[in-house]
Amino acid sequence: MTDSTLKDDDKLNNILKAAQKKFAQFGLAKTTMNDIALELGMGKASLYYYFTCKEQLFEAVVLKEQEEFIENINKSIKSTDSGIALLEVYVKRRQVHFENCHNLSKLKYDSLASSPIVCKLLGDFYKKEAEVVKTILEIGVAKGEFVEGDMSEKADFLILVMQGLRLATIKRKNDTILSKQDHAVLTKHLVTTVDMFVKSIQK
Amino acid sequence: MTDSTLKDDDKLNNILKAAQKKFAQFGLAKTTMNDIALELGMGKASLYYYFTCKEQLFEAVVLKEQEEFIENINKSIKSTDSGIALLEVYVKRRQVHFENCHNLSKLKYDSLASSPIVCKLLGDFYKKEAEVVKTILEIGVAKGEFVEGDMSEKADFLILVMQGLRLATIKRKNDTILSKQDHAVLTKHLVTTVDMFVKSIQK
Repeated sequence: MTDSTLKDDDKLNNILKAAQKKFAQFGLAKTTMNDIALELGMGKASLYYYFTCKEQLFEAVVLKEQEEFIENINKSIKSTDSGIALLEVYVKRRQVHFENCHNLSKLKYDSLASSPIVCKLLGDFYKKEAEVVKTILEIGVAKGEFVEGDMSEKADFLILVMQGLRLATIKRKNDTILSKQDHAVLTKHLVTTVDMFVKSIQK
Repeated sequence: MTDSTLKDDDKLNNILKAAQKKFAQFGLAKTTMNDIALELGMGKASLYYYFTCKEQLFEAVVLKEQEEFIENINKSIKSTDSGIALLEVYVKRRQVHFENCHNLSKLKYDSLASSPIVCKLLGDFYKKEAEVVKTILEIGVAKGEFVEGDMSEKADFLILVMQGLRLATIKRKNDTILSKQDHAVLTKHLVTTVDMFVKSIQK
């Protein structure tokens, strides 16, 4: 199958995959549109037909990561009938998602999070994440695992604490890129936090 | 009693008090050495005899706040024989300390925390804070309130989660100065976190 016979959706998908690979390899600042075009075996001009700059392409890659995370966790929600089990799945997948996004940019967190595009993307994502966590907590209540309460408030609180742990971990590393080891320690702290949280709302 | 009859220690103390008042009123950037000298009824030249610049004076004020916090919590430790009660005291005093320091600078957190002087001050403070929290947890174990464990690790974890909550709260406000209301919400979140933490280590 040649480029011209591929449907637009497939082409887009291939571009996003190639861009994801290159960003993860070199980071946002060091990746060029040329690197991505070469990876695709596609002319640079054709790539510019789809994306006007690498920042727009980066945004699309992050958005795709976010959508996949939300989609996957929603699949688990449909197939799992325990709030406790779902929270365990959520905390681990959420950390993998953070690690992926952190690696894509290879940027200091503050430079990244202060870009208006990423701010908007994160804001939208946090809303979806809050919905997902609220749904998980409500499943726990329905299954008799958790005591009843304002699950919207509890979901916001849990997300804030987890976000804080990521920020504090980055802060302690003086805003440099986190290593595999740092991510492992962070994962341990996040799991401990969710365990504490579960104990505090368990029946 | 005139300026010249005051001992050096008293003079220093008066300078720190006046500087504390002015920094809390105008913030670091907007306070001048002149404002502080005027508050003291002292010549600017005399003030420069004690501190060579306002940043050095700011450092001394923050250090004094930190020392008073640690001193006060150590007094409570000597007079209270419950780890749970001490954690309650600690979380509330710690938040007042943060609010005071946050108000003194009236700076975006990142501009402040990235200054080398403040970095050093915070690093030293975190070590003292870790010691204090560890001591409190060990009191809880000795009194049979908490299960035994690596209390140094648990203290670090609690401090990290609390630091994270402060950072995430600031992040959500787009790094602007927190209002009274923001501090009240943050206090609620910190108290909830310490409650969760206590439940997770309680016998």
